[in-house]
Amino acid sequence: MVRRQRGRDISLTMATVEIICIGSELLDGSVRDANAAALGAALASHGTQLDNARFIGDAVDVIEEALRDARADLVVVCGGLGPTVDDVTRDAAARFSKSELALVPEALEHLESRFAARGRAMTPNNLRQAMLPAGSTMLPTEVGTAPGFKIDRGGRLFYFLPGVPHEFRWFLERFLEPLFPEPVGWTRRLLQFHGLGESALETEIADVIEDATTRGLVVGYRAAYPVIELKLTGEPDLVAETRELVLGRLAAHWVGEDDTPLPARLGQLLLDRGETITTAESCTAGGIAALLTEVSGSSAWFGRGWVTYANDAKAEELGVLDSVLLAHGAVSPQTVCQMAAGARRRARTTYAVAVSGIAGPSGGTPQKPVGTVHFGLATPIGVYHRHVRFHGDRQSVRAGTAFTSLAMLLSVLQGRPSELGAAHREEDVWAEGGIDLQGAG
Amino acid sequence: MVRRQRGRDISLTMATVEIICIGSELLDGSVRDANAAALGAALASHGTQLDNARFIGDAVDVIEEALRDARADLVVVCGGLGPTVDDVTRDAAARFSKSELALVPEALEHLESRFAARGRAMTPNNLRQAMLPAGSTMLPTEVGTAPGFKIDRGGRLFYFLPGVPHEFRWFLERFLEPLFPEPVGWTRRLLQFHGLGESALETEIADVIEDATTRGLVVGYRAAYPVIELKLTGEPDLVAETRELVLGRLAAHWVGEDDTPLPARLGQLLLDRGETITTAESCTAGGIAALLTEVSGSSAWFGRGWVTYANDAKAEELGVLDSVLLAHGAVSPQTVCQMAAGARRRARTTYAVAVSGIAGPSGGTPQKPVGTVHFGLATPIGVYHRHVRFHGDRQSVRAGTAFTSLAMLLSVLQGRPSELGAAHREEDVWAEGGIDLQGAG
Repeated sequence: MVRRQRGRDISLTMATVEIICIGSELLDGSVRDANAAALGAALASHGTQLDNARFIGDAVDVIEEALRDARADLVVVCGGLGPTVDDVTRDAAARFSKSELALVPEALEHLESRFAARGRAMTPNNLRQAMLPAGSTMLPTEVGTAPGFKIDRGGRLFYFLPGVPHEFRWFLERFLEPLFPEPVGWTRRLLQFHGLGESALETEIADVIEDATTRGLVVGYRAAYPVIELKLTGEPDLVAETRELVLGRLAAHWVGEDDTPLPARLGQLLLDRGETITTAESCTAGGIAALLTEVSGSSAWFGRGWVTYANDAKAEELGVLDSVLLAHGAVSPQTVCQMAAGARRRARTTYAVAVSGIAGPSGGTPQKPVGTVHFGLATPIGVYHRHVRFHGDRQSVRAGTAFTSLAMLLSVLQGRPSELGAAHREEDVWAEGGIDLQGAG
Repeated sequence: MVRRQRGRDISLTMATVEIICIGSELLDGSVRDANAAALGAALASHGTQLDNARFIGDAVDVIEEALRDARADLVVVCGGLGPTVDDVTRDAAARFSKSELALVPEALEHLESRFAARGRAMTPNNLRQAMLPAGSTMLPTEVGTAPGFKIDRGGRLFYFLPGVPHEFRWFLERFLEPLFPEPVGWTRRLLQFHGLGESALETEIADVIEDATTRGLVVGYRAAYPVIELKLTGEPDLVAETRELVLGRLAAHWVGEDDTPLPARLGQLLLDRGETITTAESCTAGGIAALLTEVSGSSAWFGRGWVTYANDAKAEELGVLDSVLLAHGAVSPQTVCQMAAGARRRARTTYAVAVSGIAGPSGGTPQKPVGTVHFGLATPIGVYHRHVRFHGDRQSVRAGTAFTSLAMLLSVLQGRPSELGAAHREEDVWAEGGIDLQGAG
């Protein structure tokens, strides 16, 4: 409650906010929420917060009941404004406000012009989207067919908005954000750490956090595979000071931050040094390149990459020796080091990351179980190798592999290659039979 | 409400279910829910459903209030069982059940042995995880440090489970699913369509759906960019019959289904024909290859792919002519058709998809605004070209591009290449200056 009261004391102009998200797809596992998250993020950036989010099915009486149960000053309702028969939020809002649905000429005009502009025929079911509860105020849309509307009832403001996430975000910016309090000057930083557990992290910085908390900082921890997140919220100076102290303790595990996630950090470091990177991927099959290029402007330090799923692709594109593939297999230290060295040579880059592993669910053996992944990182001073056994399904093995490969690169860029052991010399990597790694593989 | 009553009539052994998810990260936009979705999906597979989901912050009194407000017969509570100071669900549960927290020796033993097995030191804050409300029943864990627990209070069963999604899923399977009713024999199919709007889709099949609904089918529509989803739930025969009728009308737009998403459909078609595919990606930078290989066993028809972000990579790896890059630019029909033809030749595959576009937010021009994407699809009979202008942010342009490239491949594999216009002959694609496309680009 402390967190909440603190937010309240500072933003006195704002009262409580809740959201009701409508759609059975949110309750049967077909869809994950995006709108409560967007509203929450917007409120957080104004120094306040969402108090409560509810998800309910799209049935008229269930929605009406939820509207009656609402207790916040501002109630945001989203979803169920589409043209199809299962979109019944308008009907529930009419019942709740004891009114009837009526055709709104402005809304109809908007619909007609939108369909005309796109050269598409308007279908009769689209007419439903121009019917709003009598007495409500229409919120015109520029991004879809469904207008929103608002109702003032029992001292609460109800905003009914479309559930399609990009439409919802547009209404949020246009109609809701102007209601929010001025930003209070609080800062939020979200630090991401890799390679240690949540409780070890907390223990490592317990005294720093205790001191800062006493001085008003709000702190949160979260395990967000493959990282642990530490969230610091409060006065900018206190957040900055605490951040510095935390990073002093945990520099080796720090991989990114909300405004500079790992790919952005790597990109900035590469840019500063005028260095470049390439990728050679087997099990991730493009996932590392896609992750690196999430950053706009990545073309300055990333020009090409290879997906070499098959053995012949590893040999033809990257120069991996057939003898090495035969002797050690595709998932081996020898192969992955040759993939990295070959990609670096071919792309003429400063660095190359390579991965080869067994993402599952099939393909595992007792010697190389599902989740076994080898990493190679070619650098100007030699090729580093690492071996990790991941747990989880195909998707999480692939995501964990992509992230870990970039965390390896970060260690090297930050001058901590010692964490990776010794680099293998290029000539050893290319020796017939490959590098000699006792026990690895 | 019809939907709910129908579910209820059939699964008489089960009463109402709700979930309370605890964690301020769910309300400030840092994290999207996975657990309510997992519980909802599990219930749906048993022919029943989740009635209500609530997200609240991690403050003792807020949690206690939510526990008192719960109205369902089975109340699942998740989150706030970690070792850190902001994990206060145990405290709230103790207050709610008017008891005290007490050290549970079994839980402590489990913690100690888990840390010993991993060679990690146990920290004092981990002890909190062995403290449970007196009178509660411990639910031992095999997947993490936090045990769950259950409380029977006021005729309701409360299950307190960890919020880490993979741990939550383990508890769900182990402790909750046995409480669910036997599957009722209902089927759910989720059909995905691409290239038409939600209302056009509904209009196209209105009579089929109306008839099926009268006979008891439950139908839902959802715009889930880049697809529109149609969900059919009901008796297996009725679902199957309706599915056939719907696909008869909309075959050209049907791209996938819940159990066979687009990459799986493509994979099965390629496998049946003994054909193969490669990728040459600029703006998606690995996203198409990663999407294709989400399917286990994809190595049977996908062996390699290229990420050619830079112009020199397009020329060196794929053979795109410098003269073409110079005359038309990287984002042009000519370049993308040479990328596709070059990748197909180099990888010796049946097909090659290639994309080049401007994902943004920077890089747009009046002639080629952000969102402009060119697609090339090389096949044994020539190279198809398509040009799409996407709207949205970098992430959605990239995701839409990857999906659309695979939808193009599907048209060809299904013998509907006419949707793509005429194929350009290989020799025209390689002509100095590239193919002549009036008005394109």
